[in-house]
Amino acid sequence: MSKQLNIGLFGFGVVGESLYNVLLQTPTLNASITKVVIRDPRKRRSAPAALFSTDASEILNDESINVVVELIDDADAAFQIITTALLNGKAVVSANKKCIAEHLDELLLLQQQTGGALLYEAAACASIPVIRNLEEYYDNDLLQGIVGVVNGSTNFILTRMVEDDLTFKDALLLARQLGFAESDPSLDVDGIDALNKLAILLLHGYGIVTEPGLLLHSGIRHITRSDISYAAEKGYRIKLVACAVKLKNGRIIALVLPQFVPRSSLLHNVNNEYNGVTIRSGLADEQFFYGKGAGGFPTASAVLSDLSALRYNYRYEYRKKFLQESSVLSQYGFLKVYVSFDSHITFPSDEFEWIEERHSGPGRNYITGVVSQKKLLQDDWWRQPGISLILSAEPFVEDIELRNVKRKSLQLAGVA
Amino acid sequence: MSKQLNIGLFGFGVVGESLYNVLLQTPTLNASITKVVIRDPRKRRSAPAALFSTDASEILNDESINVVVELIDDADAAFQIITTALLNGKAVVSANKKCIAEHLDELLLLQQQTGGALLYEAAACASIPVIRNLEEYYDNDLLQGIVGVVNGSTNFILTRMVEDDLTFKDALLLARQLGFAESDPSLDVDGIDALNKLAILLLHGYGIVTEPGLLLHSGIRHITRSDISYAAEKGYRIKLVACAVKLKNGRIIALVLPQFVPRSSLLHNVNNEYNGVTIRSGLADEQFFYGKGAGGFPTASAVLSDLSALRYNYRYEYRKKFLQESSVLSQYGFLKVYVSFDSHITFPSDEFEWIEERHSGPGRNYITGVVSQKKLLQDDWWRQPGISLILSAEPFVEDIELRNVKRKSLQLAGVA
Repeated sequence: MSKQLNIGLFGFGVVGESLYNVLLQTPTLNASITKVVIRDPRKRRSAPAALFSTDASEILNDESINVVVELIDDADAAFQIITTALLNGKAVVSANKKCIAEHLDELLLLQQQTGGALLYEAAACASIPVIRNLEEYYDNDLLQGIVGVVNGSTNFILTRMVEDDLTFKDALLLARQLGFAESDPSLDVDGIDALNKLAILLLHGYGIVTEPGLLLHSGIRHITRSDISYAAEKGYRIKLVACAVKLKNGRIIALVLPQFVPRSSLLHNVNNEYNGVTIRSGLADEQFFYGKGAGGFPTASAVLSDLSALRYNYRYEYRKKFLQESSVLSQYGFLKVYVSFDSHITFPSDEFEWIEERHSGPGRNYITGVVSQKKLLQDDWWRQPGISLILSAEPFVEDIELRNVKRKSLQLAGVA
Repeated sequence: MSKQLNIGLFGFGVVGESLYNVLLQTPTLNASITKVVIRDPRKRRSAPAALFSTDASEILNDESINVVVELIDDADAAFQIITTALLNGKAVVSANKKCIAEHLDELLLLQQQTGGALLYEAAACASIPVIRNLEEYYDNDLLQGIVGVVNGSTNFILTRMVEDDLTFKDALLLARQLGFAESDPSLDVDGIDALNKLAILLLHGYGIVTEPGLLLHSGIRHITRSDISYAAEKGYRIKLVACAVKLKNGRIIALVLPQFVPRSSLLHNVNNEYNGVTIRSGLADEQFFYGKGAGGFPTASAVLSDLSALRYNYRYEYRKKFLQESSVLSQYGFLKVYVSFDSHITFPSDEFEWIEERHSGPGRNYITGVVSQKKLLQDDWWRQPGISLILSAEPFVEDIELRNVKRKSLQLAGVA
């Protein structure tokens, strides 16, 4: 019933090697790796030498290979491999979120032109089957929102800051020592990795193609221990959250920001290197997926799931984009936030639509109130060292609510 | 790429009607309902009258219909429909866990003989895609265990007992009033529904076909408020848990019993009518799926996911059963349990392999210790009114551990 997969594999790191071993031990999958292209031929490999080559064309031009699995780090090289493979009539499985997110438009077009399948379940939350679920099971108009902790590295750091009472720097160091952060951790720590994943989820959830960098985002670099204490007092944990939520006006607000997550939220218990994604829809109500979002084995597990799908000629149809009316991104939303800043910095009151709370104390001050999405996108006062901006637990202020509160403030002030 | 589904639908309750509406509003799914067979022709329906019939053959003998969706309550009638549809060359989607679980063997055989597809994602945990995940993504030898809260009705009752300080009877009454329990709740309350789901998960997870009734099981009928208090003191919640866990000897211990669930467990926060399933595997580590496990919309959502899969000619291959060495059920395991009983009942000490703790107090006594799986299966002292048996948080005692502890007890007693 299902077809035989002859796989050409790029990259033989932890993911590639796990995949090789699982396929070897599981002949019932009807899939075998016939060639592996690597960069460094001198490295010792735990597989027969005849399997390896440093020449990409040995896979890309081999007609007996019908599936290319691309597991290399370099996003540009990955893009070359994916496009060539698709043009040569091969199905492709990739785990490279950066490459996918940055080339969504071109990769969509190429799939349409070639009729080939490109699957990348591993590119968002690794072992958690969130892409296929969004693609298949949630109709555009029924999908109310996707909210997730999608970066294991920052989540590990934030968890250690809480549980071991560490500063950001010390927690980052620990994450590096334990292999939960790259030697250049900026992709993770500045929220770019989460943003790439969000861009992929936006496409499969809402049919929106966007350049990741245009979305409102920040990372966790400026989160202080006083922020952590503030959160703990209120029963919150701070998480770097990626979300795409439908507002009452039907538009989608999409962003990556640190957020206060209350105990009642399922994301509260997503700690350390784990990922979790909550999907709300009209039909299935609330669903929550949890698992390891990075690492060799979880990534191999997701790649395996894509291979399994290819056996049935499955391909993403990008239904929300091509077959339904795509959703539109909100640009003019309002967000409830907490902003803390070193005491030598002037209160950034002017940046707020309205202020709910001001606090000054030894070393650190904070404000809570409402800011405009558009202004945050334009300005970068809130990204400066010494300032941290954290979304409140219920962050989305609908326009109507904003008008009411503004009127009320004016009334209180005796103006209206 | 994907094929057109012409659907004949049996049953037009909440699930059927939601499905009809979603398919109507989503032409991109390439699936439409062309005939609906119902029992009562006089009921008012929110769809054109021409769609309905009371004659099953109008679907089963119509060659233009290539998919039968079966959503009726009656398990025997459902079995007739499913078998006839498969024999007539149609693919079938069913949500009837009782029918599926009780006829696993016959339905497997029939699928092999006819080459037809029978999908039933809705039959275990409704909107949670657990069956397909087990079938596709976890290799037999990599799957360490499946532990889940899979019955919303009992979970609602237990949650209300804790949060509203209700007795079992009052909580059951509340569940009925709110539509979370049937007028005859025994299938839920006595653990049979969870058991049926476990039987299905055992097949897709481990390739084991078993008569559900042969597995160790009980429900929540005899759980008292003193059990709830005992749990609360230790930071536990009592959940009716279905589990299939691989022991060190490679065998699978499968059971449905109430269990103490600690705060550190992801199942701790699965409350009210929600379901949650934890899957542990060598590759993906721990994964957790959470969502509504019953109700019209969540069930419709799962049926929709099966229809979506049928568009790619997907079918369960039952890989763990047919293409790998199936696992074997453990019959001789040992379990750590807590047994509480009314004070007029004699301490059932003889039933224990060893006892860790005894407590007697006003109204209610309890013992904690280790019992043998085999003895529990044979005897029914622990199912009697006035007695409740609850699995401990870490319930599985490996043989070797048992021998050590036994030796130690004997040494302490000065025997060895």
